[in-house]
Amino acid sequence: MQIVQQQRCFGGRQIRYQHTSNVLHCDMQFSVFLPPQAESGPVPAVYWLSGLTCNDENFSSKAGAQRVAAELGLALIIPDTSPRGEGVADDDNAAYDLGLGAGFYVNATQAPWNKHYQMYDYTLNELPALVEAELPLTNKRAITGHSMGGHGALVLALRNQARFSSVSAFAPISNPSDCPWGEKAFTAYLGDNREMWSHYDASLLLINKGCTLPILVDQGEADNFLTEQLKPQTLVAAAKQTNADLTLRMQQGYDHSYYFIASFIEDHLRFHAKHLR
Amino acid sequence: MQIVQQQRCFGGRQIRYQHTSNVLHCDMQFSVFLPPQAESGPVPAVYWLSGLTCNDENFSSKAGAQRVAAELGLALIIPDTSPRGEGVADDDNAAYDLGLGAGFYVNATQAPWNKHYQMYDYTLNELPALVEAELPLTNKRAITGHSMGGHGALVLALRNQARFSSVSAFAPISNPSDCPWGEKAFTAYLGDNREMWSHYDASLLLINKGCTLPILVDQGEADNFLTEQLKPQTLVAAAKQTNADLTLRMQQGYDHSYYFIASFIEDHLRFHAKHLR
Repeated sequence: MQIVQQQRCFGGRQIRYQHTSNVLHCDMQFSVFLPPQAESGPVPAVYWLSGLTCNDENFSSKAGAQRVAAELGLALIIPDTSPRGEGVADDDNAAYDLGLGAGFYVNATQAPWNKHYQMYDYTLNELPALVEAELPLTNKRAITGHSMGGHGALVLALRNQARFSSVSAFAPISNPSDCPWGEKAFTAYLGDNREMWSHYDASLLLINKGCTLPILVDQGEADNFLTEQLKPQTLVAAAKQTNADLTLRMQQGYDHSYYFIASFIEDHLRFHAKHLR
Repeated sequence: MQIVQQQRCFGGRQIRYQHTSNVLHCDMQFSVFLPPQAESGPVPAVYWLSGLTCNDENFSSKAGAQRVAAELGLALIIPDTSPRGEGVADDDNAAYDLGLGAGFYVNATQAPWNKHYQMYDYTLNELPALVEAELPLTNKRAITGHSMGGHGALVLALRNQARFSSVSAFAPISNPSDCPWGEKAFTAYLGDNREMWSHYDASLLLINKGCTLPILVDQGEADNFLTEQLKPQTLVAAAKQTNADLTLRMQQGYDHSYYFIASFIEDHLRFHAKHLR
């Protein structure tokens, strides 16, 4: 992995890396924030999975997360949202919710997507192994994300509860098997067999597996996507059914934007820091 | 003035407005953050002047200033950096440092710029009069900015010391009469008469007028523009000569980016809040 850009930030370092992904079969960029504490020893990591249309720069530049991460001694690991580059399939109409910028953190099984769109393996295995080998990180991990990335964070954590200390999400797509974004993406990437879909649906995974990790979810009440796409109440119902430790906070007046994320990222990082100790 | 966009942020409101400027003879957009305290009464305002290539969205989305402004009860007023729209002159080669996005907060006297490029009057008079008439603001004001906007903040404050309680700047163009950015812009907007330039040069203004306001300047030591364009030591020398209350903080390792601004905006807002009381 090679440094593309590096900048001092809150006494730590905001770094953009490039590497060749063996899982995605393309060159990828991702961003890392290393807090000042990483100068003197390994630190735990919080993974941030971004939403539709984003790359690693949106969260890095807009969420204001580095301030609290620097205080708490947390690294931030921020992957891209899909494979990239020439030869990587995209939606025929370059739709914002399929193809580039919309990998949905699944391992695609359907052509033409299956050649590159293996974001589940990339974010769960390849990227953590890489950064834990190359950077001053412990093997303690938490995971969070926004919208499509909130879905990704919940799915990765629910399927791999021993890998993470805690999981949180901002306005996650909570039940992708039953919303337009999810149905479109899962049909394209995974095909028509809904049994396959259930492995990538946080509400169904929670019902099927339960969860021993603490879960924090923030959801803006003025979010335009709340009713049709996000459906956090489905996740709450699944948590109730399985006695999972899930806290959903409905935030009055907040929408789906980074102004919402910036307003509550501090709470999420403190939540993760408590459980990473 | 009309609301273009409005979002909840840190318990307050981040709002983008559009209005027709009588000074600039074009439609303009600007952004405002109103803290929660503005719901119950007028609050003081901190004006932010942005740097080259920016509009009102860069600071709004990248600096993380709303968190501290919400705590301190400060409104943020964030103008654009030049007149905009069809018919507004731009550099023939669309250079980033002249024309659109590069108004330099001066009143242009030279054609073709003088028709629209009256950013000094706009930011000093028209915009404050508008927002103080329409929004819950007191007439207490502080001013700050970055790079070209740091230059603008210092010039507006030094020439109008009764209008502001305090002034600060991030990596300001401190002596534009003697650096490539300033010489290019001032020649275009103001002509060859350097006597005209001195009214828009913070270091020369400080020598000629002194300053009764407290001044805070942060400058990254790893800023690529430090030696050739920014020259904060010229400002420090002018402050020494006139016994002005200027603090320059050289910040080791920091560059010219918004990661630098985000790291220190809290200090600047606390500095202004103290003097706005």
